[in-house]
Amino acid sequence: MKKFINAPEEVVREALAGVGAAHPDLRIDIENQLVIRGDAPRADKVGLISGGGSGHEPLHGGFVGLGMLDAACAGEVFTSPVPDQILEATKAVDGGAGVLHIVKNYTGDVMNFQMAAELAGDENISVEAVVVDDDVAVEDSTWTAGRRGTGATVFVEKIAGALAEEGGRLADVAAVARKVNEQSASFAVALTACTTPAAGKPGFDLPEDEMEVGVGIHGEPGRRREKIQPAKAIAETTVSTILAAKPLNAGDKAIVMVNGLGATPLIELYLLYNEVAKLLAEAGVEIARNLVGNYITSLDMAGMSVTVCKADDELLRLWDAPVRTPGLRWGM
Amino acid sequence: MKKFINAPEEVVREALAGVGAAHPDLRIDIENQLVIRGDAPRADKVGLISGGGSGHEPLHGGFVGLGMLDAACAGEVFTSPVPDQILEATKAVDGGAGVLHIVKNYTGDVMNFQMAAELAGDENISVEAVVVDDDVAVEDSTWTAGRRGTGATVFVEKIAGALAEEGGRLADVAAVARKVNEQSASFAVALTACTTPAAGKPGFDLPEDEMEVGVGIHGEPGRRREKIQPAKAIAETTVSTILAAKPLNAGDKAIVMVNGLGATPLIELYLLYNEVAKLLAEAGVEIARNLVGNYITSLDMAGMSVTVCKADDELLRLWDAPVRTPGLRWGM
Repeated sequence: MKKFINAPEEVVREALAGVGAAHPDLRIDIENQLVIRGDAPRADKVGLISGGGSGHEPLHGGFVGLGMLDAACAGEVFTSPVPDQILEATKAVDGGAGVLHIVKNYTGDVMNFQMAAELAGDENISVEAVVVDDDVAVEDSTWTAGRRGTGATVFVEKIAGALAEEGGRLADVAAVARKVNEQSASFAVALTACTTPAAGKPGFDLPEDEMEVGVGIHGEPGRRREKIQPAKAIAETTVSTILAAKPLNAGDKAIVMVNGLGATPLIELYLLYNEVAKLLAEAGVEIARNLVGNYITSLDMAGMSVTVCKADDELLRLWDAPVRTPGLRWGM
Repeated sequence: MKKFINAPEEVVREALAGVGAAHPDLRIDIENQLVIRGDAPRADKVGLISGGGSGHEPLHGGFVGLGMLDAACAGEVFTSPVPDQILEATKAVDGGAGVLHIVKNYTGDVMNFQMAAELAGDENISVEAVVVDDDVAVEDSTWTAGRRGTGATVFVEKIAGALAEEGGRLADVAAVARKVNEQSASFAVALTACTTPAAGKPGFDLPEDEMEVGVGIHGEPGRRREKIQPAKAIAETTVSTILAAKPLNAGDKAIVMVNGLGATPLIELYLLYNEVAKLLAEAGVEIARNLVGNYITSLDMAGMSVTVCKADDELLRLWDAPVRTPGLRWGM
């Protein structure tokens, strides 16, 4: 296994220790595997937490900070965080205005966040949950009833985080999070499988001349395998699938992310962005904001995902609001 | 070949078009393969340019913007930019205060930047050049007389860029760039080779249980191959080599980068940062600032480099100055 690790069972905790060492404005709870904003809880601010299996970095721990998450719960690699852990995060960020749980739609995550919300309720903390299910590749999947939650999670965390930062109430922060999810669609293509530290070998075999179209962020199968196509054709499949699932009209504005799944060079992501931008321009869609880089990854998978979110003035204003996290930073 | 591209010979130009589409505050000269700050040339500001072979993104094009480079020249993948191209960049950013060339120490780069400087001199543009040679793994290498230029280039561009932004004169900007280089050392370890689009296959064979210790950013051989070690041992080799080459004393402050070479997940880079931070703490060195992520890459190589720069108050002040580029952004 070709990884910079010491022991598979220590990867998550040792990486969290590194996050703490690198970012002294964050607080790390190693025992509970939490990344917490240094100034949490903030009185009367809605707390935002998310979490999920590790291996998708910078999501979620890299998005903790001003204008985004208040805490992130790191499960083991590709494994849901447990309810007690989520409860600890919820308590750590509750400043009296309630807590929003941002949950990617995977069966284990949804169940464990729900149990944590019930436990928090027993302690008189108001919790609302938003389930992100933006991946339009498949209707159900290995670990999901319904669509998987992928790239739109970054958008939900940024935009809901901005509204919470400026004093939005829990119901409103939850509403804007749901709006972002409803207006977003993602689609991913993988050229290779990824290798978890525990397994030590790739999660699936993909022949040297094939790609997995519609792949999930843990290597869950997509729609089909086919021969590797030029970037232009891959972008066409991706954008047409997204626009078929969540139609955008000529004149609409969008926030667009071309995201690397872990092992794809930035030069290829920019090349793909060029294709995606041309296709959206042909559809009359204006890309008002964009991200190109590694934001939600799948360990060392070579692959990419595209996320498109239809954006109005409210969403763009919140997108532009200051953010200061390890993974996203602007406006201050 | 598993890449998101259309044709190997179009990769650099198509990726540059993507950079232009994603970052409208940058100007792209596709013909000359340049990324230029949108407001260049700025009157009486020293212009900073760098460049080199493509495949190391975000370096250099991703570091064009306020507080860092004024322009970057993109060669073909792993191929030096040509003198005419560098001359065009020099002319594009000269606002009358002269231009600094930041050159990584590779034979072709040094020669072509030198020819471009002579051509610029013929047009009455003052040029100073700083050659970065921070890689302490080997004394000479495949493409280098002397040490290779690697991670410290990011630090040189940031710090010299800050001084130029606040009105520093050409001699002073060159002097601080040389100081950063002299006080920096880098060392890299690869777990896999990388594949250029033109070659279509890995640049070297590395058995499943071996790593290349002291590798270069094009896959040039390092000091030796050995069996893959735990992250802790790899960090020890790396930090001890760096400290042997450029000693730091107890009480010294440093800027430290743990950099991914392209295909290494962020979770592993943070795990490595944790080890590096412990070792430097044992040596009494205070990490005053840090970067963890992909800043100077080698296409799809799985690997990492560590760069340590001894930093005084002057360098830290310039490090903290505002920067607004696709690859580094803070303070505004």
